[in-house]
Amino acid sequence: MTQNIYDDEQFFEGYGRLGRSQQGLAGAAEWPALRAMLPPMRGARVADLGCGYGWFCRWAREAGAAGVLGLDVSEKMLARAREMTDDPAITYARADLESAGLAAASFDLVYSSLTLHYIADLAGLIAAIHRALAPGGRLVFSVEHPIFTAPSAPGWVADAAGRRTWPVDGYLVEGPRRTDWITRGVIKQHRTIGTYLTLLLRAGFTLDHVEEWGPTEAQIAERPALADERMRPPFLLVAAHR
Amino acid sequence: MTQNIYDDEQFFEGYGRLGRSQQGLAGAAEWPALRAMLPPMRGARVADLGCGYGWFCRWAREAGAAGVLGLDVSEKMLARAREMTDDPAITYARADLESAGLAAASFDLVYSSLTLHYIADLAGLIAAIHRALAPGGRLVFSVEHPIFTAPSAPGWVADAAGRRTWPVDGYLVEGPRRTDWITRGVIKQHRTIGTYLTLLLRAGFTLDHVEEWGPTEAQIAERPALADERMRPPFLLVAAHR
Repeated sequence: MTQNIYDDEQFFEGYGRLGRSQQGLAGAAEWPALRAMLPPMRGARVADLGCGYGWFCRWAREAGAAGVLGLDVSEKMLARAREMTDDPAITYARADLESAGLAAASFDLVYSSLTLHYIADLAGLIAAIHRALAPGGRLVFSVEHPIFTAPSAPGWVADAAGRRTWPVDGYLVEGPRRTDWITRGVIKQHRTIGTYLTLLLRAGFTLDHVEEWGPTEAQIAERPALADERMRPPFLLVAAHR
Repeated sequence: MTQNIYDDEQFFEGYGRLGRSQQGLAGAAEWPALRAMLPPMRGARVADLGCGYGWFCRWAREAGAAGVLGLDVSEKMLARAREMTDDPAITYARADLESAGLAAASFDLVYSSLTLHYIADLAGLIAAIHRALAPGGRLVFSVEHPIFTAPSAPGWVADAAGRRTWPVDGYLVEGPRRTDWITRGVIKQHRTIGTYLTLLLRAGFTLDHVEEWGPTEAQIAERPALADERMRPPFLLVAAHR
C-alpha cells in the first residue's frame, strides 16, 4: 500500500506553492525532454497515472488526444483538477494505482510524471500497464533519479576542497526512503535504473529511450540554480512500447 | 585516439598483480552475472574487444564456440595471451578498437569486459559492432559504472556522522576523467547510463538486459571488503541484440 501524502494538509499546501504546481508544465524544466518522447497525440487514448492537478491531461487534449483518463490517489489534487476543466473527454478518477484495474488494450499512451517512485508494488503496476496498452502503445514516464533517492542523508555536502558533492550510499539497497520534502516522513521507493528497466523488459516492453535528465545550458542561463542538477541528475525519463 | 595505458611498464606490472589478472574469470566477482547474459556458446563466432590475457577467449572455446577473435591494443597483454593457448580457433590481433575494421555480419557474439570506458569514439565503435554482428547476434559488455567514474575526486568520504559516502559530482558532464589507478594519469571516458543505452538504440540495437552490478550476499560473506560495492555500484552490465 502506497502512502497518500498528497492529501496531508501541510504537504498539499506546500506542494501547491511549487513552480510546477502553479505554472504547470511550463514550470517543469524536464517537460520539453518528456514531450519529445511522446507519440503523436492526435486521436490517442491516453492515461495519466498520478495526474495531480491535471496539467498533462489538459495538454494532451489540446494536442488532439481522443480521450484522457487521469488517475490519482489524492482527492485534493483531483478536486483541483476537476475545477480546471469541463472537457467531457477528460475523466478524472481516484485510484490507488497498485489496484487501478485499467481495462485491457485500451490505451495508446500511458504517461506518468514523478509518481512511480511512490509505488511499492511496481512490478504489478508495470504488468498492468502493459496489459492496458494496445499493441504498439507507449509508456512514457519520469521518476526521481536513483542517485537522487539513494542517499541515507540526501543533500549537498562541501568537501575539504570546497567542492559540492552528492553523498551516494546504499545505491544497491532498494526499498523505502523516508525523506523530509515539503513535510516530514514522505516515503519514496528507491530503485536502481537497472531495476526499472528490468521490470519493463520482464513485462514484455521494448525500450525506446532512457534519459538521465539534466538542464540544458539555456535553462541554466535562465535559472542559474539549476546548475547543481548537472552534478547529479534529479530525474530519470524512460520511453518503452508494448 | 584512445590511450594505451596497458603497455605502460608500471601499469602492466601492477595490473598483473590484480586478482582478476592472476585468477582470470574466477577472480572477477561480476563474471557470474555477465556469464548469465551470454547466448549459447556452442558453434558461436565470438569477438572479444579488449581481450587482455585472453581468459574469456579460452573460456568461450571451452564452452563450445566455433572460433574466437581476441582484440587488444596492448602488445604486452596479447603476448601473454598467446603464451597461454595453442588453440588454432583462437586468433589474437592487435587493434585500436576505434578502427578495428571488423568484417560485416561475421559474429554471433561481441563481448567486451571493462574496456569500452576507455574508448573516445564510442558511437563509431558501437556502429561497427552492430555491422559486425549477424542478424540476432548479441553484444554483451561491462564498463565501469558512471557513478564510479563521475567524481572529480573519486574515493570514499566519511561524513560528520561517520557514514561512508561516494562523492558524486559532474555526473552529467561527460568526457575524459584522469585518474590514478595502478599508475598515474589513466584516462577513462565518463558517460551516463542514458548515453550508453542511447548509443545502442541509435545504432539499431534492441536492449535485452541492463544491470547495475553489485556483489551478492554470498560473495560479501566470502570477501567482506566487497560490501562497499553495494553502496555505489562499480560496474554496469548490458546485453543487447542486433
